[in-house]
Amino acid sequence: MSEDQPIAILGGTGDQGLGLALRFCQARRRVVIGSRDRARAGRAAEQVAGRVPGALVAGLENAEAIADASVVILSVPFESTVATLEAVRERFEPGQLVVSIGVPLASAVGAGATRLLGVWEGSCAELVASRLPEGVEVASALQNVAAHRLRQLAEPIDCDVVVSGAPGPRRRCMALCELLPGVRAIDGGPLANARIVESLTALLIGLNARYRVPEGIGLRFTGLPASERGGAKAAESSG
Amino acid sequence: MSEDQPIAILGGTGDQGLGLALRFCQARRRVVIGSRDRARAGRAAEQVAGRVPGALVAGLENAEAIADASVVILSVPFESTVATLEAVRERFEPGQLVVSIGVPLASAVGAGATRLLGVWEGSCAELVASRLPEGVEVASALQNVAAHRLRQLAEPIDCDVVVSGAPGPRRRCMALCELLPGVRAIDGGPLANARIVESLTALLIGLNARYRVPEGIGLRFTGLPASERGGAKAAESSG
Amino acid sequence: MSEDQPIAILGGTGDQGLGLALRFCQARRRVVIGSRDRARAGRAAEQVAGRVPGALVAGLENAEAIADASVVILSVPFESTVATLEAVRERFEPGQLVVSIGVPLASAVGAGATRLLGVWEGSCAELVASRLPEGVEVASALQNVAAHRLRQLAEPIDCDVVVSGAPGPRRRCMALCELLPGVRAIDGGPLANARIVESLTALLIGLNARYRVPEGIGLRFTGLPASERGGAKAAESSG
Amino acid sequence: MSEDQPIAILGGTGDQGLGLALRFCQARRRVVIGSRDRARAGRAAEQVAGRVPGALVAGLENAEAIADASVVILSVPFESTVATLEAVRERFEPGQLVVSIGVPLASAVGAGATRLLGVWEGSCAELVASRLPEGVEVASALQNVAAHRLRQLAEPIDCDVVVSGAPGPRRRCMALCELLPGVRAIDGGPLANARIVESLTALLIGLNARYRVPEGIGLRFTGLPASERGGAKAAESSG
Repeated sequence: MSEDQPIAILGGTGDQGLGLALRFCQARRRVVIGSRDRARAGRAAEQVAGRVPGALVAGLENAEAIADASVVILSVPFESTVATLEAVRERFEPGQLVVSIGVPLASAVGAGATRLLGVWEGSCAELVASRLPEGVEVASALQNVAAHRLRQLAEPIDCDVVVSGAPGPRRRCMALCELLPGVRAIDGGPLANARIVESLTALLIGLNARYRVPEGIGLRFTGLPASERGGAKAAESSG
Repeated sequence: MSEDQPIAILGGTGDQGLGLALRFCQARRRVVIGSRDRARAGRAAEQVAGRVPGALVAGLENAEAIADASVVILSVPFESTVATLEAVRERFEPGQLVVSIGVPLASAVGAGATRLLGVWEGSCAELVASRLPEGVEVASALQNVAAHRLRQLAEPIDCDVVVSGAPGPRRRCMALCELLPGVRAIDGGPLANARIVESLTALLIGLNARYRVPEGIGLRFTGLPASERGGAKAAESSG
Repeated sequence: MSEDQPIAILGGTGDQGLGLALRFCQARRRVVIGSRDRARAGRAAEQVAGRVPGALVAGLENAEAIADASVVILSVPFESTVATLEAVRERFEPGQLVVSIGVPLASAVGAGATRLLGVWEGSCAELVASRLPEGVEVASALQNVAAHRLRQLAEPIDCDVVVSGAPGPRRRCMALCELLPGVRAIDGGPLANARIVESLTALLIGLNARYRVPEGIGLRFTGLPASERGGAKAAESSG
Repeated sequence: MSEDQPIAILGGTGDQGLGLALRFCQARRRVVIGSRDRARAGRAAEQVAGRVPGALVAGLENAEAIADASVVILSVPFESTVATLEAVRERFEPGQLVVSIGVPLASAVGAGATRLLGVWEGSCAELVASRLPEGVEVASALQNVAAHRLRQLAEPIDCDVVVSGAPGPRRRCMALCELLPGVRAIDGGPLANARIVESLTALLIGLNARYRVPEGIGLRFTGLPASERGGAKAAESSG
């Protein structure tokens, strides 16, 4: 796995996915936008290329998008998670890192985005992990970064991102997140903690509405050791 | 509310809903089958009339179906629960009894019918209760009666049905369930207990598959006082 | 692992544990009752010996009780589960089968036995599994057999017992349960299903109170293939 | 209810409770520390008086502590919540505000403070609400303020505090929280949101361990309207 390999973003034509595509292109990483609809993926890629000069970006069907990627970001609505994984499952390669950014919002069943569904496996991330072929790595991150903040390319994102997973994928995902300007990756421990981080999204969506902040309220942790940049040290020492 | 008023079955064109329509017609109750699609509701009503001689059955749009009903059975997939209630909400009248038979199976998000989603409000029944106008009563029942058993009109259903709700609606719903031949209504206590009863459906679906019983495995409680028919006594004494 | 090896029952001095000790002795299996307090365990063993002529029963401290056992039944209150496992963890041997019969009743935090706590790992059984050394097998069973029924030695228990676990331990546990007279073991699928079976206990406790059945209401499934004895066939074919 | 009435802190002899007592005394509010053990409460009150010159503080048994209080902060371990409320239930007066700061950490059953128990009622705060006499108000807050930060009286607490509850109690509790120096109260919406806020505590406890920050990591939201002090405006407009 190397930095030359693209980051695939499944569901990359949505608000959040497109925002991530913009930012990773801005960080000079190659990006492949995946979609069920190849033409739509292509148009999204053109949009990204139009906004980020020199962007290395392509649009493909989800299954093709995975092909050479070192990292696959799963940016689909929660209710499409299983179907998306089933459609591309055969294409995963051992060593790839899948990043779950989904949240089981109750909007999946029409009951609102400020409430959550409980997930049998514990969280969207653990559901994802349960559906991947052996050898594919999983981490959970980026649930709480507002799409609006991603798309304002002139401004830093200004957000802490809690990353959960087994130590290896977690470290890898923390490094990935810190490619984003103004993002500090926080070592969120084992994958099961994703259930807490995911639930925060519902709280933030409620806050955005109550405080009328369409650009999205973000999260910062205070009191972390000053020398930390992204908690790499924590991730190294923790199991 | 009287016995002359119809029982409305929203989502009555599905397997479970149609089965209930057949059985309540068999029990000489008037039935209105509701559907989003009026023509489909009409065809389902004809099907029922064809199988139950003398059936008093009609097919209407969901919102119309509620009009004169004393009882409204909500027989839609879990993921359609909120949308269905929103579409008909204006039509409810105080004193009507809504019976929630839905189960938050993970199939709502593509993750299989032997697993469950957690519901913010606690259960499908409590979600339903949270979305009804004041004065409309709610009970939970009939989740675990297999559609196949409902549709074999020559045979008794042979199943205990656990009914949950506040004491008034619970008693009313127990009496309703005991119209079904071979059903014993069990006093399941407060509505919040619906979460346990609903989860049983996922277990039974798994059992049906493992034991290859397409007609559906049922449930019986043993050791209940012999004189009990449907636990009416229990419901009377319990809060 | 052989039939000559004892069944250890940790927490065997409680109502449920003592009942199981009586019944397994009645079935001519060797039983070791475990307790934190060796003297108490000894007195419980004497009680069992007094009621079952020819009983092969001893009372030991929990950690000693595990020593030669092929099966270890964990019969402690939910809130003692982790502490009990930690105290004996070193003594487990690969190949032993641990049977979780615990239920996360809200009484663990003073909030009543008709309500449940959610368990981070999914169920008491999965919590147990997460705390055992590698190679020790786990199954979930016997949550819903009332202590009273166990202790009425002249009468059959008259109850279906749903067994969950990976296929191997599940089969082994089903065979164990069918040593109990009047018990039919039901193939409950993977261990994660224990969360459903455990929750049933809270419902049954409520039913016992509402229907005033101190001896305990039991559960039977109807419609299972007639030839089934305990669903051995199902367990063999299912993953 | 007036500012002259004391703030009662049940379980006020623990780390978190004592810290709150110190800070509310520092803010010149009268404080009554409650405990099951009156002598212990008295000693805690002396400790507070020794650290905050001019502190108006007393130590009483829990039930007595409630007597004149306008606000009752429930600062007991989750597993003692129900027992504590039952012991003092008779003493509550309509109009009092009970603030739930508890978190259903799995340590209540020995399974660690970085994991959570699920609560039948949804959260510790909703469990509390379900056990209070009518007319007593409830809000949820202060779960994520580390005891260490509370006790360093020379430094601001530097933490956002998410407050949940019905609009009235929520506003009242937000004003209370903003008495604490360096605390910004955030309008967390309805009481049911407490389940998200409570779960954050388990995440923060894990972060404190991984990053070795015994004084406790805190939380800040970014992007809130600059003019907001504590979101009073949000609370006024939201239902």
